[in-house]
Amino acid sequence: MHDLLLKNVRPLGGATTDILIRDGRIAQTGSLAAQPGIAVEDGGNAIAWPGLIDAHTHIDKTTWGMGWHENNREATLRSRIDFERENRLAIGLDPHRQSMRHAIGLAAHGATHIRSHVDIDTTHGLRLVEGVQETREKLKGIIDIEIVAFPQSGVVCMPGTVELLDEALSNGCEVLGGLDPCGIDRDPKGQLDVLFQLALKHGVDIDIHLHEAGELGAFSMELIFERVRANGMQGHFAISHAFCLGMNDYLRVGKLMEQIAELDIAILTTGAPSATVPSVKRLKEHGIRIGAGCDGIRDTWGPWGQPDMIDRARIIGMKNGVRSDDDLKFMLEIVSQGGAEVMHLDGYGLDIGDHADFTLLAGETPANAVVEITPPPLVVKGGQVVARNGVCIIEMP
Amino acid sequence: MHDLLLKNVRPLGGATTDILIRDGRIAQTGSLAAQPGIAVEDGGNAIAWPGLIDAHTHIDKTTWGMGWHENNREATLRSRIDFERENRLAIGLDPHRQSMRHAIGLAAHGATHIRSHVDIDTTHGLRLVEGVQETREKLKGIIDIEIVAFPQSGVVCMPGTVELLDEALSNGCEVLGGLDPCGIDRDPKGQLDVLFQLALKHGVDIDIHLHEAGELGAFSMELIFERVRANGMQGHFAISHAFCLGMNDYLRVGKLMEQIAELDIAILTTGAPSATVPSVKRLKEHGIRIGAGCDGIRDTWGPWGQPDMIDRARIIGMKNGVRSDDDLKFMLEIVSQGGAEVMHLDGYGLDIGDHADFTLLAGETPANAVVEITPPPLVVKGGQVVARNGVCIIEMP
Ligand SMILES: [Zn+2]
Ligand SMILES: [Zn+2]
Repeated sequence: MHDLLLKNVRPLGGATTDILIRDGRIAQTGSLAAQPGIAVEDGGNAIAWPGLIDAHTHIDKTTWGMGWHENNREATLRSRIDFERENRLAIGLDPHRQSMRHAIGLAAHGATHIRSHVDIDTTHGLRLVEGVQETREKLKGIIDIEIVAFPQSGVVCMPGTVELLDEALSNGCEVLGGLDPCGIDRDPKGQLDVLFQLALKHGVDIDIHLHEAGELGAFSMELIFERVRANGMQGHFAISHAFCLGMNDYLRVGKLMEQIAELDIAILTTGAPSATVPSVKRLKEHGIRIGAGCDGIRDTWGPWGQPDMIDRARIIGMKNGVRSDDDLKFMLEIVSQGGAEVMHLDGYGLDIGDHADFTLLAGETPANAVVEITPPPLVVKGGQVVARNGVCIIEMP
Repeated sequence: MHDLLLKNVRPLGGATTDILIRDGRIAQTGSLAAQPGIAVEDGGNAIAWPGLIDAHTHIDKTTWGMGWHENNREATLRSRIDFERENRLAIGLDPHRQSMRHAIGLAAHGATHIRSHVDIDTTHGLRLVEGVQETREKLKGIIDIEIVAFPQSGVVCMPGTVELLDEALSNGCEVLGGLDPCGIDRDPKGQLDVLFQLALKHGVDIDIHLHEAGELGAFSMELIFERVRANGMQGHFAISHAFCLGMNDYLRVGKLMEQIAELDIAILTTGAPSATVPSVKRLKEHGIRIGAGCDGIRDTWGPWGQPDMIDRARIIGMKNGVRSDDDLKFMLEIVSQGGAEVMHLDGYGLDIGDHADFTLLAGETPANAVVEITPPPLVVKGGQVVARNGVCIIEMP
């Protein structure tokens, strides 16, 4: 854990101050003199913001840094899943190398925490998780990585998967994933009962992908509500995407959000530009915890995305049609504090005693910072400077 | 007009070749030897693509390069229009300086042509047009600027505007604009009759903003169809935004598109992330000319956007949910050939005899180029190198 004196920064866009870091935590703020043995950095009066959080991504999947992956394939959700599972190793998608690239890219752009879903299937067993675990070890002190055991190919429709998930949760995966109980598994009761059983056995949160639109997604949500309530998992369930909350029925969506709020279920959004997405402002009005992520970037599924949570704040902001400074600031909060609430992070923030995990941002104000494409001047993790101007101290392999 | 020998480029992503430019036009391709008196550039095997075209923007409006413009105002379309008109000069929005910044930014990112709507209203008369005309003169040889006389505050609801539009079309504006005949003017027949009369008098195209959604927009479109047919303006009318074509009624939209195709009306899209937008693939299936633009960037209306047509190709591609290489290439075509078709440009392309207006693109393939955020290595206008790596030879004022 590191010591550092950071001069001239504006925490959360407020007044200029200095920040003293001792043993990786924020020890003091104010106008502070240099001390013997403590490194000094000048923040150039930039905004200091708590470390950005990619709370929904897939760092085992990206083709980043590889040759261009041509894609003229047929495009159903199922066919994308199957193509990837069958071809990922053959096309050179090494899970360790690629997750290093992805995670380093995120750190270079101001992120200090990642929640990554990692595929678990009967073709690869836990091999992909192991590759990401290797990355997690190597990037200790640079960026924290939480792993979701993710049954990308389905749970009950792929016999053998439940046992692998069980094993993964015994071996360092912190969260249990799932996806589209109707759309992928074709057996919503079957998938959800198994997931809740596993989560209770291991005492972990569930974070489920729910792409199902309209009433189908609402139906799956209602099955989830029943089980969260019955199993006392309030505060420990997250729904990623939740595209059905973007449906056009204002009253129906309101009823769903009321239940989500009551059960303290978190929502994770990517601002998916071509899908219906939940209104982040409406979620906020309901007091729902909301985080965000880049999801897959430049993978066999599609070409879009950057390992950059400010880029993602822009995508979510544009999709949600926000324009005011207050709303832009909220976009920054979603990709930082919001993710921390979803991941139950302790000591996250810029208060005395908090972990010294933060980033400087380009721009006059937090709102301005959302639209500046300049990379963060400085990223600090545990008191150590881990990136400058978009370049991480660890090189991409 | 310039001579240039450009070595090692891949026109449209094809095989590597050299391009010889004589008097600002493409004279020869193949493996070419250097010639005395002709400058040589090495293209580094990059893709050469016809100059990008921002076919829908507002270069008189941006706050680019000024201090951050805070915005916590109430947000109706009308209130945005009124705030801007009443405050633009007071907050320092000099139309010449700001349009220089905007246009230079576009050129730096590979654009060689702009169609800009420029506000005409009874508060400013033609002052804003004059500022943009000054920019057009100064940037001759760097980027071509076509000006649309744009009644931003309304046509018939603002007496005196029609006379100003008439004057503008006599004084160098090439196209007549308009907007929301129902939503803004509250008199669709009144606005449209006046616009067609003016366009016929001056022999110019019309390019109208149509934000009206659903059936209201469809109604305005039908009024437009009737007048295009009655006045023989086939091929000379463009509808910008056309949000109503993004409505959820598949058959209704199909009928509208059939008429648009039959009347050879062009559609201009910005891929507006929070609105319903026309499907660019469906427009293409109907054989409709389709261009694109960045619209306003970082102005009093909102904070979004970059002066960068590759960024816009990304926004349109993400909004349209495209993923395949073929579709990504189509996104590039929309921001280049598509705009040229809307603007009726002669000699546009990479064939022998065409104007030497093109850009090099980062990326292995045209599809890859859409998602690379690296600026164009080289931009050529009339045979002159006008930008390198995102920096224009003319500095922003
Ligand atoms: Zn995902
Ligand atoms: Zn516009």
